[in-house]
Amino acid sequence: MSDVKSTESDENVQPQTEASLRKRKILLGLLGVGIVVSAAAYGVALAMAEDPSEKGLDRAVESLAATRPTAVNLRWALDGMRRHLSELSAEQRFAAAIARAGEIAEEDVAINRAIGEHGLRLIEDAHRRKGRRGTVQILTHCNAGWLATVDWGTATAPIYLAHDRGLKVHVWVDETRPRNQGASLTAWELGHHGVPHTVIPDNTGGHLMQHRMVDLAIVGTDRVTANGDVCNKIGTYLKALAAHDNGVPFYVALPSPTIDFSIDDGIRQIPIEQRSADEVANMTGRTADGRVETVRVVPDGSPVANYAFDVTPARLVTGLITERGLLRPERAALASAFPERSAGH
Amino acid sequence: MSDVKSTESDENVQPQTEASLRKRKILLGLLGVGIVVSAAAYGVALAMAEDPSEKGLDRAVESLAATRPTAVNLRWALDGMRRHLSELSAEQRFAAAIARAGEIAEEDVAINRAIGEHGLRLIEDAHRRKGRRGTVQILTHCNAGWLATVDWGTATAPIYLAHDRGLKVHVWVDETRPRNQGASLTAWELGHHGVPHTVIPDNTGGHLMQHRMVDLAIVGTDRVTANGDVCNKIGTYLKALAAHDNGVPFYVALPSPTIDFSIDDGIRQIPIEQRSADEVANMTGRTADGRVETVRVVPDGSPVANYAFDVTPARLVTGLITERGLLRPERAALASAFPERSAGH
Repeated sequence: MSDVKSTESDENVQPQTEASLRKRKILLGLLGVGIVVSAAAYGVALAMAEDPSEKGLDRAVESLAATRPTAVNLRWALDGMRRHLSELSAEQRFAAAIARAGEIAEEDVAINRAIGEHGLRLIEDAHRRKGRRGTVQILTHCNAGWLATVDWGTATAPIYLAHDRGLKVHVWVDETRPRNQGASLTAWELGHHGVPHTVIPDNTGGHLMQHRMVDLAIVGTDRVTANGDVCNKIGTYLKALAAHDNGVPFYVALPSPTIDFSIDDGIRQIPIEQRSADEVANMTGRTADGRVETVRVVPDGSPVANYAFDVTPARLVTGLITERGLLRPERAALASAFPERSAGH
Repeated sequence: MSDVKSTESDENVQPQTEASLRKRKILLGLLGVGIVVSAAAYGVALAMAEDPSEKGLDRAVESLAATRPTAVNLRWALDGMRRHLSELSAEQRFAAAIARAGEIAEEDVAINRAIGEHGLRLIEDAHRRKGRRGTVQILTHCNAGWLATVDWGTATAPIYLAHDRGLKVHVWVDETRPRNQGASLTAWELGHHGVPHTVIPDNTGGHLMQHRMVDLAIVGTDRVTANGDVCNKIGTYLKALAAHDNGVPFYVALPSPTIDFSIDDGIRQIPIEQRSADEVANMTGRTADGRVETVRVVPDGSPVANYAFDVTPARLVTGLITERGLLRPERAALASAFPERSAGH
């Protein structure tokens, strides 16, 4: 109970209903597979339309932050929105939030475009290593494409650029259980863009790498520590192990807000969100005659665990593709590329 | 076209219909998740009921062998059946095949019971390492339980014994995409037996091992090379990498017919079966109101690859649990434990 709230007029303080909290969760759920900064910003704007009071702002920021404890860029965007909006009157907040969310989305596009350009060089390198013949085989996990971010995506941005510039690429798309973001989102997105790809069960990548069927791996991330540990969708660590074991370069594409300069040790310090057992036990899809059905694929009575992310230690990461270029996954490299972010840590 | 066939009377040579081949495939499909020697033997018996000619025997053996090119114990059992039956007249073959299949099933039970006893010691060791307190956490992949073999299972035999003798165990059950043998068969089987367990997506094991939530891993296998490379359900290699990276003992339970003394290098020499894309793209389960439905979970037009197995190099395997004890995954250890099998290779 802070003093600030008493300065708000009572008519502005609408009760935060379960429904409105749920609405915001849905917004993030829809957009935020890899969690996008602009979705959080628009989420705050949505809340300001309902309750632009200081209390409403606090609640919006905290409830949105709680939806994804693992993603640090969400917290970064939300804190920025709070600072920006709390200097304004309640009446100004909705319009300001919408405007700021629009700016953030524009910045997101520019960042991802830059990531695409830097990542493209890695695909070109792989092509050169193959004697400029044949198709560059790329493995990806989860969805870090334009469905999860804005326009270009992070992990997919270099792939789109390569494809558009006539480089032959083929993408192995990890299904990404339990939510199947690879099979549902990434495959759909790549298909829509005309990029050759093949959906594979998450179990498959190691076999492909053992048989030289993967030239490089590119994934997104939800949080990178100051030392370069990478938190991403559960299962990423297993692919990084396989890449390391087979000499396949393993890259992580990330906008700099994803870097958390306040922590070093990803395994000990990043909280890993646990999600509903239903995401694992139930699968939704279309039947042969076009109905959408949800089916249970785990025996009744069998407990289910659903850890949403894992941490890939920096030692398994070949490089971090940021908007300011390819960086080694080390504190010095990250700090010198982003001095304004690392200062004070 | 061998001479042998001409010695058969024409009335015995019934045409091998698609339906009868399919019937045998179904038999193996039902029983043979890890492929069981006795299923193959009964498959030959089933074929002898239809066509006990030399030609019928050849066809049964070859068509059954072709259903699972990766599994070497299948080939071993089928060759044994062929040798046994070809010395008999066509009239004697069906009864002899049934009798031999019964013997093989009995041997299978005895082998798995012995594997259980040897594996139990490893679980007891893990319990000792924990100061005899708490629950021993075991991770397994796919199904190598009594649904796949006879009675005890291979990988699950030590778990059942430990549970029955009052040792507290808990099993992390890999879902095992795409066919979900873990979630559907292993979880059901463990639940039926009262063994505490939790179903997890295949992506999860690495995270659990990083956080010291797995004390040991035990899996089955379809073929082990003379050097100890282990071929098992796709994704096993990724778990072995994670176990190695985190110092978690990684054991493989196997009946000795699974050892292929004719090859050394699992990655180069074991053919990896590719299966239907439908296994990945479609999921079958029960709806909330109890109907069984199959839903498609991959976008139309997105190609799918389905490699059924991968190879875990011997260097990642802590030990092989055989009916003659725990062996190091090395040629000398395997050859000295099974001199009658390794002779001549």
